[in-house]
Amino acid sequence: MIYLDNSATTPVDKAVCDKIYEMLSVNFGNPSSFHKAGLNANTELKNARQSLANALSCEAEEIYFTSGGTEANNLAILGAAEANKRRGKRIVTTAIEHESVLQSINELEKQGFEVVRLMPDSKGNITKAQIADAINGDTILVSIMYVNNEVGSVLPVDFIKKVVKRANAPALIHIDCVQAFGKIPVKPAKLGADLVTVTAHKIGGPKGVGALYVKKGVRILPRTFGGEQEKRLRPGTQAMPLIAGFGTACEGITDLDAQSERMHALCTYAKDELCKIDGVLLNSGSDASDYIINFYVPVFMTSQTVVQHLSSKYDICISNGSACAKGKKSHVLTAMRLPDKVIERSVRVSFSKHTTKEEIDALIKAIRETVADYAK
Amino acid sequence: MIYLDNSATTPVDKAVCDKIYEMLSVNFGNPSSFHKAGLNANTELKNARQSLANALSCEAEEIYFTSGGTEANNLAILGAAEANKRRGKRIVTTAIEHESVLQSINELEKQGFEVVRLMPDSKGNITKAQIADAINGDTILVSIMYVNNEVGSVLPVDFIKKVVKRANAPALIHIDCVQAFGKIPVKPAKLGADLVTVTAHKIGGPKGVGALYVKKGVRILPRTFGGEQEKRLRPGTQAMPLIAGFGTACEGITDLDAQSERMHALCTYAKDELCKIDGVLLNSGSDASDYIINFYVPVFMTSQTVVQHLSSKYDICISNGSACAKGKKSHVLTAMRLPDKVIERSVRVSFSKHTTKEEIDALIKAIRETVADYAK
Repeated sequence: MIYLDNSATTPVDKAVCDKIYEMLSVNFGNPSSFHKAGLNANTELKNARQSLANALSCEAEEIYFTSGGTEANNLAILGAAEANKRRGKRIVTTAIEHESVLQSINELEKQGFEVVRLMPDSKGNITKAQIADAINGDTILVSIMYVNNEVGSVLPVDFIKKVVKRANAPALIHIDCVQAFGKIPVKPAKLGADLVTVTAHKIGGPKGVGALYVKKGVRILPRTFGGEQEKRLRPGTQAMPLIAGFGTACEGITDLDAQSERMHALCTYAKDELCKIDGVLLNSGSDASDYIINFYVPVFMTSQTVVQHLSSKYDICISNGSACAKGKKSHVLTAMRLPDKVIERSVRVSFSKHTTKEEIDALIKAIRETVADYAK
Repeated sequence: MIYLDNSATTPVDKAVCDKIYEMLSVNFGNPSSFHKAGLNANTELKNARQSLANALSCEAEEIYFTSGGTEANNLAILGAAEANKRRGKRIVTTAIEHESVLQSINELEKQGFEVVRLMPDSKGNITKAQIADAINGDTILVSIMYVNNEVGSVLPVDFIKKVVKRANAPALIHIDCVQAFGKIPVKPAKLGADLVTVTAHKIGGPKGVGALYVKKGVRILPRTFGGEQEKRLRPGTQAMPLIAGFGTACEGITDLDAQSERMHALCTYAKDELCKIDGVLLNSGSDASDYIINFYVPVFMTSQTVVQHLSSKYDICISNGSACAKGKKSHVLTAMRLPDKVIERSVRVSFSKHTTKEEIDALIKAIRETVADYAK
């Protein structure tokens, strides 16, 4: 199987699988228990938190484990708005965020917050000027993703802090870094972020665990109530097998410079080859992430059928957009004002650091044949 | 190691470990994806949901996966209150619920709900009469646990439905069955429950996954916002390795009658032997769950030190109360009106179906020696 849907979820690194098995079979204690089994589990919890901190160049106490990116985004946005609601009522975001950010902010809008949603250009880009114009002194939260999950556009998130300061806004800054983490450097302090979301299952870790970075001194309110875990911001027995696996996956993030260079060459090659196929159009921009290519396939089938065709005929896994949206019309391509006929026939391929040129070649061949066989 | 802290978390069944490893290494797809990797994962999701449904004698579509018992309790309570808030303002619960229920309901009290907390007797029991007296026509939610996690008292939860009907109350009925599941039959329909919480890591499954049963036709509101997963009641990529492991753990629940008979003999033996130790007092009642014994250890050390002493000297894992409360004074023993000196020196041992007489004997020997060595 050729797996080119790494933005939906990645295969799990062997070292991660083994770590998780160890946590299940040998080190199964509850990290809140005071006996040996508990203390051993707690040591692993500390180690994993430190691995996350190392990967994000932050302190271990700034890491809060969650059940994934969706929960971390909800906690960041709803928790920040609740903590900050008396300081203002504007929330600034974009029209191309992940469903978990979009829907959380929709909820806040229903509660009376004023929401500004920045619109992207035709390649999914947002400009610094747009951000500067949107943030005013009444802004209590800015939530903008680093790398878009459908088209790979890279947003100028490190510019937000400057604008918030200039506007003298009480805003907390939340950056959804799910698609950036493990691919480009994600350093919350350098990004000027108060809140950063990452998740394990896009970097060779398991599904079911994520983390929220909360800058020391920043106060947000919990969404879940219970025990003492995660300093009461996110109570519930920690998912130790997954958390330890997440830590191991983070340790696999090394030498992003070399990785980026290789991926840029690979992605450029893929884009060049795709463009040679008659009628194929790239929806991703030339300065997008090298891990995501969204493109229009000129066939009479819709994208979901193209995905199934590639899977059944070629054993190649690609996607027709965000897995979380499961078949709904893409809000990202819609915001980019692409015509409906393009949106309906666009697919996403997404790479990991393990993706090879041979896999790209197989993809190109499959797309070329599909276009030839099913041309409109 | 002799592990007698199964109410905090259990060792993971070998079949569960292996299933999780398979989901990590082979079947790693996102169940929302349309290609083969996704469809294979989705098959496992369906199988696990059916396994839960079989274990609860309910329908698969009534099962919603969460990140654990704490999240399921929060979703049930806060989601039910939000959906039902225009129908009344009373919530009936007990003073001995798990932290995740207590704290969720405290939040609702802050929002203006009227909360009635039933007080237990000296053995942690609540009577039917107390329940009957507390529920009135203004009651929108009743949340009472089936088996108490600290002392093992079994609460008359199957009586609630009758009272709710009699009072003509709009109340939804939530039963936290975390400590009952896998030990006594948990059949939501028979219990008259609208909402039932269970979790994997108390029945040989992994930490990090639980489930909420929501009776067909009952409407509660989500606490998390995002994608299409779990019918939008609990969005976020499903934690497939853990969910599949939970399904496997449920398949391990067989012949509860034979298991109960064996455990009753074992627990009776343990209680008899404990009572022979000079000064030991049982806090658990004679009709409590056969999986939990809470007792007073007449030594000058506090319970946390006893736990550590048993771990370091005898390699026996027991607990000084709920792991989630991590060292706080037990609200359960406090509600039972035990004297402070008893509360401070009480410990909990908790069994699984794998617990043996040899392990009980080792515990008894260790407690006897500890009492002799450190008597007050």
